[in-house]
Amino acid sequence: MHPYQVKIGTQVKLSEIDPNDQSLFPKLTKKNYFKALEKLNTQLESLQELLFAQGKHRVLVVLQAMDTAGKDGTIRSVFDGVNPLGVKVASFKKPTPDELAHDYLWRVHPYVPGNGELVIFNRSHYEDVLVVRVHNLVPPEKWSKRYEHINAFEEMLVDEGTTILKFFLHIDKDEQKARLEERLKEPSKQWKFAVGDLDERKRWDDYMQAYEAVLEKTSKKHAPWFIIPANRKWYRNLVISQILVDTLTSLNMEYPAPAPGLENIVVE
Amino acid sequence: MHPYQVKIGTQVKLSEIDPNDQSLFPKLTKKNYFKALEKLNTQLESLQELLFAQGKHRVLVVLQAMDTAGKDGTIRSVFDGVNPLGVKVASFKKPTPDELAHDYLWRVHPYVPGNGELVIFNRSHYEDVLVVRVHNLVPPEKWSKRYEHINAFEEMLVDEGTTILKFFLHIDKDEQKARLEERLKEPSKQWKFAVGDLDERKRWDDYMQAYEAVLEKTSKKHAPWFIIPANRKWYRNLVISQILVDTLTSLNMEYPAPAPGLENIVVE
Repeated sequence: MHPYQVKIGTQVKLSEIDPNDQSLFPKLTKKNYFKALEKLNTQLESLQELLFAQGKHRVLVVLQAMDTAGKDGTIRSVFDGVNPLGVKVASFKKPTPDELAHDYLWRVHPYVPGNGELVIFNRSHYEDVLVVRVHNLVPPEKWSKRYEHINAFEEMLVDEGTTILKFFLHIDKDEQKARLEERLKEPSKQWKFAVGDLDERKRWDDYMQAYEAVLEKTSKKHAPWFIIPANRKWYRNLVISQILVDTLTSLNMEYPAPAPGLENIVVE
Repeated sequence: MHPYQVKIGTQVKLSEIDPNDQSLFPKLTKKNYFKALEKLNTQLESLQELLFAQGKHRVLVVLQAMDTAGKDGTIRSVFDGVNPLGVKVASFKKPTPDELAHDYLWRVHPYVPGNGELVIFNRSHYEDVLVVRVHNLVPPEKWSKRYEHINAFEEMLVDEGTTILKFFLHIDKDEQKARLEERLKEPSKQWKFAVGDLDERKRWDDYMQAYEAVLEKTSKKHAPWFIIPANRKWYRNLVISQILVDTLTSLNMEYPAPAPGLENIVVE
């Protein structure tokens, strides 16, 4: 089992998990980082091409994190170079009235991967036990049932041929402060700053508690959660890339056999 | 509990259930039938208007049956007069390649009812443990897991505010023969005849077995199955209409309160 994978049935204490950990790539220099990431990017590119060509497996990557923890940055860095034909990002923001008029899985289900596809959920159905819980948007007797729904939903996806990987990007409150301040100062980053982010920051502890419940209740063998130390962006990128490459490799994919008689065809 | 509701955890033997039963409306004349249906239609119309106006509940009606058993006829007769604004029929036929490239709930989920809506599934996700099972379209280790997926899916819908009613229209093989022969003869019905129907008819016993498994494994308190004696069309229509009226009545719906100060508004 991967060292960052959440063991089923264990209690998770995020305050005891070091967001600066770099034990999997110790003593890496900046130059070596770029080399290592490039190598992983190339591997991921080939594996995704194979995934698409074979058209058999479906891969769902779920990204969850506090603001500024690097969901967008992860997508940009880790999936650099993959073929957009077979890779899709589905971003879930504040639900529309029409979405709120339906069950909370209604808006995510249409975006799950089909054969040969890799889909990244940038936020996900987990928001319905995170922001919804922290802000009391539905009563506890309602959201408390959702962990089991979500487990059943993901189990169904897996039984039907989907591989699911879920990443929680773990930063601490100080790191968020530094990143929010950078967004305030840097003109090219100001567009990412929303005043509402500060309100959410005030509820940091509530969010940590809600995340701990998610990580404890919904990390399954078939759909594991990984807690990724994410104070260091380079480390976050390498760890996630490596997990993706390893997981796709373990699918033992093959290019489909050529059509029979292909060896005799002459293109004139 | 309704006499036709499938008790949870009981064995279902369809061959022992009389498709000619008319115990709930004994000795009804044809004239009285039309009166009774009209009365139920009117009640259903009012209840559906209320459902829509209140915009709180969601109602899902699942119709499953062998060919000619009357799915289309039920929809036409029972829902005669309801407002199409709030009532939708979703018909599920042979899946497209794109649908087959995803999990089998992927194509039905977008059509589940939203607040205030009543949706009728004309065939449904149950086909994935019926036709799929009878024709071995996926291996048993795959379809056998689907009963639990379906229960979990429907439980999630119910937890989130949906009322689910599932009707199996029960005819016998002789009645199907008579109806297929009518389709062959009657010019206005010939369009409904498909040669493939005869192949399916040959597998009658396999289908009965597959239906029995569905009725046994997926009738739940939150999403009950009803086995409707359906050799007599009028009887089928009355029984289903009555169940719908009773169920919607039990929701104790109310028109939303008027906006405050409405009593002082003068329209000039």
